[in-house]
Amino acid sequence: MIPMTQPARVPDPLPSWNNMTVKEALIGFVELVTGDSPGGFVPGEERIAVFDNDGTLCSEMPVLMQFAFIAERVRALLPEYPEWKDKSPFKEILCGDMHGALSSGRGGISGVLAATYTGMTTVQFEHEVTRWMNTARHPVTGRLYTEMVYQPMLELLAYLRKNLFKIFIVSASGIDFMRPWTQGVYGIPPEQVIGSSIRLKYEVHDEVPVLIRLPNVEIFDEGEEKPVAIHHFIGRRPILVFGDSDGDLQMLQWGASGSGPRFAGLIHHTGTEWECVHEANNSDLPDGKHGRVLSEAYARGWTVVDMKRDWRTIFPFET
Amino acid sequence: MIPMTQPARVPDPLPSWNNMTVKEALIGFVELVTGDSPGGFVPGEERIAVFDNDGTLCSEMPVLMQFAFIAERVRALLPEYPEWKDKSPFKEILCGDMHGALSSGRGGISGVLAATYTGMTTVQFEHEVTRWMNTARHPVTGRLYTEMVYQPMLELLAYLRKNLFKIFIVSASGIDFMRPWTQGVYGIPPEQVIGSSIRLKYEVHDEVPVLIRLPNVEIFDEGEEKPVAIHHFIGRRPILVFGDSDGDLQMLQWGASGSGPRFAGLIHHTGTEWECVHEANNSDLPDGKHGRVLSEAYARGWTVVDMKRDWRTIFPFET
Repeated sequence: MIPMTQPARVPDPLPSWNNMTVKEALIGFVELVTGDSPGGFVPGEERIAVFDNDGTLCSEMPVLMQFAFIAERVRALLPEYPEWKDKSPFKEILCGDMHGALSSGRGGISGVLAATYTGMTTVQFEHEVTRWMNTARHPVTGRLYTEMVYQPMLELLAYLRKNLFKIFIVSASGIDFMRPWTQGVYGIPPEQVIGSSIRLKYEVHDEVPVLIRLPNVEIFDEGEEKPVAIHHFIGRRPILVFGDSDGDLQMLQWGASGSGPRFAGLIHHTGTEWECVHEANNSDLPDGKHGRVLSEAYARGWTVVDMKRDWRTIFPFET
Repeated sequence: MIPMTQPARVPDPLPSWNNMTVKEALIGFVELVTGDSPGGFVPGEERIAVFDNDGTLCSEMPVLMQFAFIAERVRALLPEYPEWKDKSPFKEILCGDMHGALSSGRGGISGVLAATYTGMTTVQFEHEVTRWMNTARHPVTGRLYTEMVYQPMLELLAYLRKNLFKIFIVSASGIDFMRPWTQGVYGIPPEQVIGSSIRLKYEVHDEVPVLIRLPNVEIFDEGEEKPVAIHHFIGRRPILVFGDSDGDLQMLQWGASGSGPRFAGLIHHTGTEWECVHEANNSDLPDGKHGRVLSEAYARGWTVVDMKRDWRTIFPFET
């Protein structure tokens, strides 16, 4: 006798997401583009998804981490450059005052970048980043920086990959600062990481070809440069975009405006008073208004992920 | 009774290649990196292969084609710019004198690029390229340009893909000029095409985000810029590199010099008097010497593909 078949119990692909509208919207979108409804199906090779990194896939980790990484170098070079003790933004960096250092603007930051990890080869820089990543810890939680990633987003990445999405990171962080660890942390290979970059120069030293890091910022991958970089690196428009701040606004607009099914998601940092960097960009303002990207998300019907409401856990070490 | 097993007859992965040293070297390399010999195996995700396009994967098609594509535009715009009739390199372009036009150097060519397909959106440009590709024919053979690809290289691409290589094009041709057709012709998706590019600017026109092509060359992806672009786009060093001219020299050096198994291949254009553009770069010179990249290939033991000797057929329409 043939046993009665029971409907297979499908495991929940997003167990750290509460069963609310946002989770339904995500699963509904994936089922739409992989299903056979007319106007819904998207071929696998066109399932391009892009994610901001800092504040979207992880805590403000990369900014803090890159700050600490640079601060270590500034301290190491200080004997050679004693004048840094009285010069902004070096003096703020030496005091650990990240906000003060950042307030020096792009010019000041470019000066620091030019003074620290340039003049070395890309291979040497990769060794420095890897050594750092394996040892440096978050000042508040004491965790390795690479543990400070959002568990619900790791589940979303895995779910998308299982449905043949090709996932790219599009971040303002340094491209060569992210690439050594994105594969291990997110399962995203180096060729799918897009970020800010400095100029490189090809040289041959004693018969060995090297790429030298020059002290010039080439791409600052933020704001309007994000859709430009997406076109430049990927050459097609993503159908799913996730960001968390004003620096992601144009990337969200670009992804949301193509033909066919589209998903634009914004991480809204509710209940995250423990973050070291306040995410003012997408906050609810005291007068009941919203920051710019949050206003646009509500106006355009993008999906707003309320961390406190929509997520059951935040970090992998909590599960 | 169990029948005697016969060794399975493995189909030849490279039927258009003559059974010579070069074919053996290619198959030997793929078997080495996919096999289990210590120091030989390379994990699938690190099997990055890069190919120059023009003269490596196809006849001089892209240069000619891009020249014809630009010439069409110059003719169309001539009523607005009658002065072009007496101005280099526009006048050479109008006469169909590609060599004369190219001799105006990078400055002249940049002027033409700035005057022709800029001020339009990336979407409009893609439509122009696609329309052109579907109709324009090679002046000598009368074939569609997309048919003028090398059959032995198509087989090599398929063989590498089957062995989990991820294949990138790294070309001096315009990145957005190649991307609309590389998937159909080579099976290489847009995000694995690297080329020269002009600046783009993000704008919102009547609520619709667009990327506008500006009249400034951003990257001229040739020579020393090729390894820089490989690092920038891919973030790791390829283990297999193929080129055909001095513009590929640094990319070949870069790929050949990493650790572990390496394959550097150079297409030597023997017996191709029918090509419209003479490939002086890798020729055998009358005095028994060689062009620069060919000399380096022999000196370093790179694999030189002698088209006349190593290939059984050249184009798919001949098979």
